[in-house]
Amino acid sequence: MLDPELISLENQVFRCYLGWSAILVLKIFALSIYTGLTRFITATFANPEDLMSPKLKVKFDDPNVERVRRAHRNDLENILPFFAIGLLYVLTNPAAFLAINLFRAVGIARIVHTIVYAVVVVPQPSRALAFFVALGATVYMALQVVLSAF
Amino acid sequence: MLDPELISLENQVFRCYLGWSAILVLKIFALSIYTGLTRFITATFANPEDLMSPKLKVKFDDPNVERVRRAHRNDLENILPFFAIGLLYVLTNPAAFLAINLFRAVGIARIVHTIVYAVVVVPQPSRALAFFVALGATVYMALQVVLSAF
Amino acid sequence: MLDPELISLENQVFRCYLGWSAILVLKIFALSIYTGLTRFITATFANPEDLMSPKLKVKFDDPNVERVRRAHRNDLENILPFFAIGLLYVLTNPAAFLAINLFRAVGIARIVHTIVYAVVVVPQPSRALAFFVALGATVYMALQVVLSAF
Repeated sequence: MLDPELISLENQVFRCYLGWSAILVLKIFALSIYTGLTRFITATFANPEDLMSPKLKVKFDDPNVERVRRAHRNDLENILPFFAIGLLYVLTNPAAFLAINLFRAVGIARIVHTIVYAVVVVPQPSRALAFFVALGATVYMALQVVLSAF
Repeated sequence: MLDPELISLENQVFRCYLGWSAILVLKIFALSIYTGLTRFITATFANPEDLMSPKLKVKFDDPNVERVRRAHRNDLENILPFFAIGLLYVLTNPAAFLAINLFRAVGIARIVHTIVYAVVVVPQPSRALAFFVALGATVYMALQVVLSAF
Repeated sequence: MLDPELISLENQVFRCYLGWSAILVLKIFALSIYTGLTRFITATFANPEDLMSPKLKVKFDDPNVERVRRAHRNDLENILPFFAIGLLYVLTNPAAFLAINLFRAVGIARIVHTIVYAVVVVPQPSRALAFFVALGATVYMALQVVLSAF
């Protein structure tokens, strides 16, 4: 039924999951760095020990910093569950064509989500579309995993 | 010592982990959707581009939206580490009866946690109990994994 | 190319990943408990049903609680992606010496990060250093995974 070779670089479905997962980890970290840059540019620091000058005060309401933080949190809510469910989905031995395109859909949609949310603000429904493409693909994987488990 | 067949759908412990993980991913996403619904019902939007009418302004302090967001963040803090440690715990080849009931405990406790926190507010200690049942089971798994590693 | 025995307790690289992951899960949960303790000590509760006395009101701006919450969120942003990428990095069959020291670097740096952020506030750049050591090691792993995938 299940083949140990499923989690092997020789399985192209697993290799695709592996590649997109690593790209999305780098994308999440890019938002970390971007938050830090935005904090410096707007001089918005959340901790007294981070203040670069005695004239500064801690600040929590800069709209640019808060926007990047919302995009970052949205990543945690959506990409981190994908890491878990994508791996389990590979273990259900899905059809390669479908699985590979689902992984691509999640990866590309989440990159687009970050760009239209935090880098260049694009009017809705662009962000909503990117959000629901990734969510839909991940929900589909989760449902397949539930079916294979019970 | 360790059998590659541990991460196989033929291993009932792994299948139980797989099923509950997928259910909990769907549960986390249900809170995403529920946050969105609560935002629409209370007309609480965090981004200017999300405002449905020019009369609305961005708002960050609606108590209903904030409650759902706290429940959601609590999921990230507790369920996401479970995804990692549950898989590693399966690899320590635990006794099936114990492992299966630990996975059920985490799954059911976290569903109860969401219900009493974000859907129907139930007085304490209901939320605290649900929180500590899931936390206790996950900590137990983490300790077993530490013991098997060193 | 890839050996199924890579994810086995007999592989010292995997065992090291397993042990540090479990320690970091316990570390994240320690911050959960610490948040709760700080809430009690400062009587800062976010939900009406949590108030211990009718004289208390919900409060969201206690600087001690908010500091622990920022440290906790930083863990979610950095440690949870490590759980995913560390496992995939093991599957690329890295040199044992390098991989084991990368895992140790992440584990120790994140523990130091928590201590200097939330327990005993130490002036910068201590927190920044701990942050970038863990980030650098995780980014290196992610890049190796990307290279092995495509």
